[in-house]
Amino acid sequence: MSATTPYPPDPHAPHSDLPGRIMAREMAEQPSVLRRLLSAGAPAIREVAQEIAARAPRFVLLTARGTSDNAALYAKYLLEIRLGLPCGLTSMSTITAYGARPDLTDVLVITVSQSGGSPDLVASTRAARAAGAITLAVTNNPDSPLAGVSEYHLDIMAGPERALPATKTYTASLLTLYLFVEGLRGGDGTPAKVLPDLAGQLLARQDEVRTLAARYRFAERMVITSRGYGYPTAREAALKLMETSYIPALAYSGADLLHGPLAMVDNVSPVIAVVTDGKGGEALQPVLDRLRGRGADLVVIGPRHQVEQASAGFVLPTENVAEEVQPILEILPLQLLAHEVTIARGQDPDAPRALAKVTETR
Amino acid sequence: MSATTPYPPDPHAPHSDLPGRIMAREMAEQPSVLRRLLSAGAPAIREVAQEIAARAPRFVLLTARGTSDNAALYAKYLLEIRLGLPCGLTSMSTITAYGARPDLTDVLVITVSQSGGSPDLVASTRAARAAGAITLAVTNNPDSPLAGVSEYHLDIMAGPERALPATKTYTASLLTLYLFVEGLRGGDGTPAKVLPDLAGQLLARQDEVRTLAARYRFAERMVITSRGYGYPTAREAALKLMETSYIPALAYSGADLLHGPLAMVDNVSPVIAVVTDGKGGEALQPVLDRLRGRGADLVVIGPRHQVEQASAGFVLPTENVAEEVQPILEILPLQLLAHEVTIARGQDPDAPRALAKVTETR
Repeated sequence: MSATTPYPPDPHAPHSDLPGRIMAREMAEQPSVLRRLLSAGAPAIREVAQEIAARAPRFVLLTARGTSDNAALYAKYLLEIRLGLPCGLTSMSTITAYGARPDLTDVLVITVSQSGGSPDLVASTRAARAAGAITLAVTNNPDSPLAGVSEYHLDIMAGPERALPATKTYTASLLTLYLFVEGLRGGDGTPAKVLPDLAGQLLARQDEVRTLAARYRFAERMVITSRGYGYPTAREAALKLMETSYIPALAYSGADLLHGPLAMVDNVSPVIAVVTDGKGGEALQPVLDRLRGRGADLVVIGPRHQVEQASAGFVLPTENVAEEVQPILEILPLQLLAHEVTIARGQDPDAPRALAKVTETR
Repeated sequence: MSATTPYPPDPHAPHSDLPGRIMAREMAEQPSVLRRLLSAGAPAIREVAQEIAARAPRFVLLTARGTSDNAALYAKYLLEIRLGLPCGLTSMSTITAYGARPDLTDVLVITVSQSGGSPDLVASTRAARAAGAITLAVTNNPDSPLAGVSEYHLDIMAGPERALPATKTYTASLLTLYLFVEGLRGGDGTPAKVLPDLAGQLLARQDEVRTLAARYRFAERMVITSRGYGYPTAREAALKLMETSYIPALAYSGADLLHGPLAMVDNVSPVIAVVTDGKGGEALQPVLDRLRGRGADLVVIGPRHQVEQASAGFVLPTENVAEEVQPILEILPLQLLAHEVTIARGQDPDAPRALAKVTETR
């Protein structure tokens, strides 16, 4: 047996201290978490969405940190593209450190937090509500302080998450936000119904990911790029790799990569491109061409024809998968990759040094 | 004589091919650019600000890429803190790739671009204007396509910039945006009057920066952190270091650093903290304490008492310098640092590989 964690893990196995065991188990729960949200969670999400739609917000501010910030960015794309609602991501210190009190009439403030416990998120949400905003918390804990101070709450129903790197709470947040935005526009979220089965199939392809991981055993840096709906995936993949393997992983939208950071890319700088099948992937094409032209080691996570033009990759199922739900699948091989690379480098993905599960920033 | 560029450069010196010569000259122009904006530029900026204030925008969207995106982020802090206007940074692909057409009535869209020539910025600004937005372009070229499609234009008056790393156009954009926001709120921008002289004094301290640069001769990664008004400086410093020296430099707001990336920091990962003298610096204190606790090599760019507690640093003049204008000074030693580190590593800061001055993203 190799030194890596068995995958999918056997829940009835005797206690094991294998590194990454907890993260592996939580990644493996994702198909059932998604299934639960689609059945048990969807009606409540739709109801909240209808109530908020009736109040016709004109502008949306999204507030979050870390992994949840990447989920919030996904929601920003959905809200702008599917609803035409202008959005912003909150610079939280303007409220918590500088005491800014903007007029938030007609503004929907969505705060995303796995724990719902970070004091700065609670404080900024309370301030937003006092300033006239419609406040919505998206958390994994309906009893959290954040849920308590928000007018509305959506439960991502992911169950307790114990590994420090967030995995199932990320995909659960994405699906919750997708169903919420669908609810705002009166849709029923049908495109999401394919996700649980496909997620299960992707997570079973651990051997392919382990082969890719060998490539990064000695990497000293990585660049991860995407565009459109895939850009939050690129950011989340970079965060996951950094907090588990400690490899400095830099995420750029394809267009931003051309404005400076491209200088950093050469034939010893590995690049991972997240290519959605749709308009985002199309807009990324010129960037992929430039990267190939520079001799970059380009690994593509995306549809088969894109992977075939790259140095290596991981083929995602995209037929009959709407572009806007692809991010819920495309992060899965990248979570597995962070897990495998970390184990290959002799570290434990469950417990990165220096981190606590609830980060008490103020 | 050392291998570094003479500084300040003698404009009457015979032609020289020393690496970094053009960037050095443009950095040295910054005091006079700032002075020109305060005298010749300010009245036009104030006039545009008054016209826009009369139209009472409710939200602001900022659109930019690369260095200009960091200037836009500075404006976001100013608008939120000093005017209480909710703001967002545009995810441009939602408009250019996905064709989103949000309702932008009452929305001020500010597009920042040194060249004013990038096709995606022109397209997204045109779309914003058609969607009802008040459009304002901030560029270094009043004859640019971007200035042409925008209802209002502010000229940053920096003169031609030939080095690929933007320096004088960054500080000129910051000052222009500061004067604009002051104009919106009916202020006269008096706190900015100290900047040209102080900028000149800072730029004369090249020897101190060269000593700091030696520290990063062999660095394989860097983390740059700040909070509040200093956060755009941290991002711009990271971009400048990456595009000149190719060192992977990761910028995080102090709070975000605690949500994951902190795991990457250890006693071989150098950290630079940009500490403004004011509420942003105060909010950064717990992060500085955590970093010191982890044994990080912590270099502080900030007020004297902060530098004295760090491994090393560069003291900024902050007495009688309002926190909101400090970013216009604090980037200067970091520009010099990027220049010096790059030369120490045997590369030419004037011409990073793979980059063009006008980046034609679509």
